[in-house]
Amino acid sequence: MKTRFLNTLLSTFLALASLQVTAAGNDPLPSWNDTASKKAIVAFVERVTQQGSPDFVPAAERIATFDQDGTLWVEHPIYTQVLYCFDRVGVLTKEKPELKEQEPFKTVLSGDREAISKLSKEDLEKILMATLSGMSVDQFQAEAKKWLASAKDPRWKRPYTELTYQPMQEVLRYLRANGFKTYIVTGGGQDFVRVYSEATYGIPPEQVVGTAEGTKYGYDKDGKPFLTKEPKLLLNDNDAGKPEGIHLMIGRRPNVAFGNSTGDRQMLEWTKAGGGARLSLILLHDDAKREYAYGPAQGLPDTKVGTFTQALYDEASSRGWTVVSMKDDWKTIFATPFLAPTGRETNQVK
Amino acid sequence: MKTRFLNTLLSTFLALASLQVTAAGNDPLPSWNDTASKKAIVAFVERVTQQGSPDFVPAAERIATFDQDGTLWVEHPIYTQVLYCFDRVGVLTKEKPELKEQEPFKTVLSGDREAISKLSKEDLEKILMATLSGMSVDQFQAEAKKWLASAKDPRWKRPYTELTYQPMQEVLRYLRANGFKTYIVTGGGQDFVRVYSEATYGIPPEQVVGTAEGTKYGYDKDGKPFLTKEPKLLLNDNDAGKPEGIHLMIGRRPNVAFGNSTGDRQMLEWTKAGGGARLSLILLHDDAKREYAYGPAQGLPDTKVGTFTQALYDEASSRGWTVVSMKDDWKTIFATPFLAPTGRETNQVK
Repeated sequence: MKTRFLNTLLSTFLALASLQVTAAGNDPLPSWNDTASKKAIVAFVERVTQQGSPDFVPAAERIATFDQDGTLWVEHPIYTQVLYCFDRVGVLTKEKPELKEQEPFKTVLSGDREAISKLSKEDLEKILMATLSGMSVDQFQAEAKKWLASAKDPRWKRPYTELTYQPMQEVLRYLRANGFKTYIVTGGGQDFVRVYSEATYGIPPEQVVGTAEGTKYGYDKDGKPFLTKEPKLLLNDNDAGKPEGIHLMIGRRPNVAFGNSTGDRQMLEWTKAGGGARLSLILLHDDAKREYAYGPAQGLPDTKVGTFTQALYDEASSRGWTVVSMKDDWKTIFATPFLAPTGRETNQVK
Repeated sequence: MKTRFLNTLLSTFLALASLQVTAAGNDPLPSWNDTASKKAIVAFVERVTQQGSPDFVPAAERIATFDQDGTLWVEHPIYTQVLYCFDRVGVLTKEKPELKEQEPFKTVLSGDREAISKLSKEDLEKILMATLSGMSVDQFQAEAKKWLASAKDPRWKRPYTELTYQPMQEVLRYLRANGFKTYIVTGGGQDFVRVYSEATYGIPPEQVVGTAEGTKYGYDKDGKPFLTKEPKLLLNDNDAGKPEGIHLMIGRRPNVAFGNSTGDRQMLEWTKAGGGARLSLILLHDDAKREYAYGPAQGLPDTKVGTFTQALYDEASSRGWTVVSMKDDWKTIFATPFLAPTGRETNQVK
């Protein structure tokens, strides 16, 4: 009798577990609250993937583009790649000591946070160009990978690659499961993001479009060829550079685009202006407790990153973009290593 | 009895057809003779795809790049895209009549073949820039598609998109069946090739890397955005521009590269110089009867297209590239519509 009771209990347990699995299986976006944003995403996917639907798009033509900083992972208070470049200034000035006394390198080396936060856009560009060029593409990849494996966000004490948003990881997976090719279209450096995009988001390097410098082909003394990163801007993948970069690197207009700031405006416009069903979404950082709240659209302090202006909010409304509220639409914020997109036990860079 | 006889005949026919399919199924490259070139391709694919092999490459990382003109389809005596641009000169000078009296447009309009064949590289570049820019990307696609549907090669009296090489279509399919992403890496215009790459080779637009001009984002009077093709060169995808373009657009070094001329040299070098097993192949046009024979390496007349020099031949040998002879290695030359890669009944542009 005892055995029979245990068996019944076990059966009941398994049945319940199975029900739970089914429920989770039915919900492609379990970290999203059941609000209008989630409904808009699911309804859109159903419209374009259902054979016979007037908005049906063949699987081979389904393209989804995502901004990275502030859309897929944390961008506040400063872009991760800029922190990387600041750290590289130390290495650079060891190789070229004459730069130690030159601005803006001198300020970066001083470690004076107040002064560093006041660096101009031109200063930042100078730092980026100097620290992201002059080495072979293989060297660059090795250096960036090493840095990403050890650097940690000061607030969360976790590697930057663990500060991706769980609800967005679910959107990426949901779209891929429905035949979409998912792309990152970032103002950040294309070569930098490609180092970790596959392990962190399940997005291969060839599906990362970003700000790109040129390279130069040459040979070493044994005739072995190599590519050197050059301080020559080929694509500034911000603002109008996003649709231009999408045309250059993908050649198709996206069906879905997701952004969070004025730098994504043209990508969202370009996507939504296509024929058939198109979905443009914009993420609002309005969750000071769980992440950050910023952007003048909310009367929140403006920052150098992720500007979300009133004009952008108005345009979202007039052009029919979906505004996603981090505070109201997301149950959880961060993806944990356990939920890494590639199925590995950690989403740190290999 | 008659019915029974017909049924038996039908069964026999089906059995034979099935046998044929099986035989073809065992040979991934049926249009290739059983020579060293074919063996090199098959051996390479087996090495990199066999789990446990020291040269195993995970499927997600398998990249194959193909030059187009002279490698996937006919380039002689003149690149198809140049013919397109010559035809567009007529349209352009209708819009801008002042160009009718200016060189090199005047020569093109004269129809004097002798004079046209003597146009310099700079003249050709001027024609390309003038005829490939100034319109929206949508307009350009529509115009190129229309031209491709009606233009015919004067020797074969067939659309250019039907002049692809059957043995190369088989290599593309064979690699894809083994997990490779196949890319076109062409000196030709990226936007031009993208118009027909999917229907003609089964290669989607986002897997075409080519010579690329910039675009400019703007709005029409109703606020609807569009992209205009600009006469500004972003990537000259020839020579060193090929590995540089591969890094820009793909971000991974290819495992296989296939070319046919000096413009492919650096791509073949770059591919072969990677770690593990790499395959670089170069196609020799030595079949005057079935296609063309050209290139100084064979004491054949040099031409403006597809230069295959003695130096290139020497390098192929010293760096271990596989030299493919059209005459000796290929059973058939042209893909027929019946064998179109997409399974459609014609490989003309949709």
